[in-house]
Amino acid sequence: MENEIIKYLSRYIPVTKELEEAISKSGFIQCFDKGTLLVEEGKFTQKCFFILKGCVRNYYIKDGEEKTTEFYTEEQAIIASANGKNIPSTYYLECMEPTIAAVSDPEFEEDMYRKFPELESLSRVMAEKILTKQIETFAEFKMASPEERYLNFLTTRPDLIQRVPQHQIASYLGIKPESLSRIRKRIMK
Amino acid sequence: MENEIIKYLSRYIPVTKELEEAISKSGFIQCFDKGTLLVEEGKFTQKCFFILKGCVRNYYIKDGEEKTTEFYTEEQAIIASANGKNIPSTYYLECMEPTIAAVSDPEFEEDMYRKFPELESLSRVMAEKILTKQIETFAEFKMASPEERYLNFLTTRPDLIQRVPQHQIASYLGIKPESLSRIRKRIMK
Repeated sequence: MENEIIKYLSRYIPVTKELEEAISKSGFIQCFDKGTLLVEEGKFTQKCFFILKGCVRNYYIKDGEEKTTEFYTEEQAIIASANGKNIPSTYYLECMEPTIAAVSDPEFEEDMYRKFPELESLSRVMAEKILTKQIETFAEFKMASPEERYLNFLTTRPDLIQRVPQHQIASYLGIKPESLSRIRKRIMK
Repeated sequence: MENEIIKYLSRYIPVTKELEEAISKSGFIQCFDKGTLLVEEGKFTQKCFFILKGCVRNYYIKDGEEKTTEFYTEEQAIIASANGKNIPSTYYLECMEPTIAAVSDPEFEEDMYRKFPELESLSRVMAEKILTKQIETFAEFKMASPEERYLNFLTTRPDLIQRVPQHQIASYLGIKPESLSRIRKRIMK
């Protein structure tokens, strides 16, 4: 899987022999079983994940109920766990499938950025791109009716329909499960 | 106002004489009258803004109605306008007050990053921080009831109550104006 990371990077920057070697030796690719919790409420972590294969669900427990707020799949970065060192996590990250991810922490990143400044430039550009997309998605969410949200979801994340349970999709879209069932029936007609 | 930028930067990185001079000479601080549209739907821009003084509203026009999705105030960066070169904007950015901002574009930034790599590191860290905050805010929005959203707003952005009209706050919180009035009355009691 180190090859996957190198292939991904070389779409954006020239990958030198030195960078390739540093990545191959880093051992930062990890495999997780389905059901693994990468982060738990109340625990401390500063890890970041870049998903090569699999699906990770972000959820909170509020009033005893799970509230799904995000799904991360292939080629998505989870930097949400970039909490401060002494701030306990308020949420969970659960592998919905066997998942392979590049896992890093601030020390590893700082070290890589020092050796390969072009990596930091890429990280800056990526963070800005993800942020722009995130702001857009949030704006669309605010403006859309529940039906529009679901139609938008079908267009932008069609793979998730098969990968995660419907009640989690409802929660993710901020819709009651009954309402989502009604919307689906209406659309099928 | 160049001093303000330098003061802000020096909270995070050592500001050398060279960097201070480059900023002073850059002329990238601009003043905008109240009502100025920094970006309009259908227009092209790649400008980014860092607000030193003032308030900028992000809104869309949907079905003939303005939908407010964000307010940016002092020390907030608007990188939402980092669209691709050939992608027309889908939204508006309007100065709600006389506004002073540092205005940059990709060419200016690339040039500064080349000369002052520590600036690019800071931008990377900032983008990741803003992204983490944005993801958290979105998750909270999804999970919260309208009343919880308003209470949260009172805590996190209390200054905005005095700075922008109530119907725009309602739109920003994804609440109908009538519902916001009811919530406010309930809370006052």
